[in-house]
Amino acid sequence: MNIIEALNWRYATKRMNGKTIPKEKLQIILDAIYLAPSSYGLQPYSIIVIENLELMKKIQPIAYMQPQITEASVLLVFAAWDCLTQQKIDEYITHVAKVRNMSEDSLKRIKLEIGNLLKNTAEENFCWHAKQASIALGVALCAAALEQIDSTPMEGFNSVDLDEVLQLKERGLRSVSIMALGYRDIENDPLVNLPKVRRNKEELFISIQSEIGFTASNINNI
Amino acid sequence: MNIIEALNWRYATKRMNGKTIPKEKLQIILDAIYLAPSSYGLQPYSIIVIENLELMKKIQPIAYMQPQITEASVLLVFAAWDCLTQQKIDEYITHVAKVRNMSEDSLKRIKLEIGNLLKNTAEENFCWHAKQASIALGVALCAAALEQIDSTPMEGFNSVDLDEVLQLKERGLRSVSIMALGYRDIENDPLVNLPKVRRNKEELFISIQSEIGFTASNINNI
Repeated sequence: MNIIEALNWRYATKRMNGKTIPKEKLQIILDAIYLAPSSYGLQPYSIIVIENLELMKKIQPIAYMQPQITEASVLLVFAAWDCLTQQKIDEYITHVAKVRNMSEDSLKRIKLEIGNLLKNTAEENFCWHAKQASIALGVALCAAALEQIDSTPMEGFNSVDLDEVLQLKERGLRSVSIMALGYRDIENDPLVNLPKVRRNKEELFISIQSEIGFTASNINNI
Repeated sequence: MNIIEALNWRYATKRMNGKTIPKEKLQIILDAIYLAPSSYGLQPYSIIVIENLELMKKIQPIAYMQPQITEASVLLVFAAWDCLTQQKIDEYITHVAKVRNMSEDSLKRIKLEIGNLLKNTAEENFCWHAKQASIALGVALCAAALEQIDSTPMEGFNSVDLDEVLQLKERGLRSVSIMALGYRDIENDPLVNLPKVRRNKEELFISIQSEIGFTASNINNI
C-alpha cells in the first residue's frame, strides 16, 4: 500500500473493536515518531504511551466519553514542553555535540539562535512546541496508516484535567493531542463508509507561476 | 522503501542540486497534503506552490540566504488562516453537508462546537491553525521521503516579509513554514553524512503501565 492509498484508507476512527495491536507495529509507529523532524531537532515534546485499560477508563470522561478511548489498543498522548529554559537548550547542545562528535564551541551560533526564543512568552513557546509535536503526529498518522493500524487524532478532551491525571505538570509538559491506535469496528462506526471531506483543491493550493503576484490556482488535477 | 527506512534516509537538506522533480512526484506530495487530517476536518490553511526561480530569489534574503531556497525544485509555503470567522465555519458546514449528502441541520452540534472557537483570541486560533498545518507538513515530509524526494522543513525566515512578498495578508493567511523540495547535493551539503540527532528514547517516550502514577519509562528497544 503506498502513502496515498494508506491516507485514503485511514479515517478518524470513532469506534474500535478492542483488539490489541501487535508489538512490532506499535514499535514502527513509535520509531516513526522518534525519527520525525523538528525545528533545530529540539523535539520539545514527549509521548505518553498508555496501554492500561483502567487508565483509559479514567481518561474517557475527560475526553467527552468518546468510545475509542477505551476501545483502542494504545493511546499516545502528545505532550509539549510547557516552557523553554536555558537548561534545556544547554542539555540539547551537549547532546548534539556528543552524537556528532563536535565541540560545543562549534555549536555556539545555533545555541544563541535557539536562546533567542527565550525572549518569547512561555505561551508563545508552548505554541511553537505544540507545532513541533503536531509534525510528529502527522508522521505517526502516516506510519499507522501504512501499517494498516487505525488511528484517531483527537483534540476533543480537557487538557487541564488530562495533564492532572497523567501528572504532566510535574514533568514540565502539557497535553496537545491524543492518538488512539487500534482496529476499526466496521459494524458500529457510522463514519466507516462516509466519504472523506476535504476542501476544494483550488482553495487549498495556490500556485504561483509568475514573479509578480498570483495567477489563479491552476492545480486542478490534484 | 518502508516508512522507517524513508525517515532514516531523509534529512533537512541544506544544499540541493537544482534538478527538477517529476510532476507526478510533486502530485503525490500535494495529494498527501490534501488527504492529511485536521481537527474537525477544517483544514484551516493553504499551501502556496512556488516553482518560479525569480520568486525563489526574492524569497532567499527573507530566509537568511539559505541556499536550498533557490536550489530547490519547488517551495511549498504552509500558510495558516490568520483568523477564524463565522463565515468560514458556515462555508465549511455547507461543504460537509454537500459532500456527505446530509442536511445542514444534522450538523448543528458540530457547527456550534467549532463556533465556540470564536471565543478565543485571533492569536490563539492562529496558533491552532498553525498546528493543523504542521500535521499536514508531517504528512508531506513522509510522502516526500517515501518518493525519494529530498525536502527541508524550514521555519528560518521572516514571516512578516514573506507574507508581504506572497500577498498572504490579502488572502487571510500567515506563513507558518516552508518545505523546500528537490534533490540533495551530495558533494556540497555538509549535513549529508552527519548522524541524526534525536533525544534519548527514555526521555522522548514515557510508558505508563499502572493505573496510578508512572512507572519508569521502559520503552528501551524502540
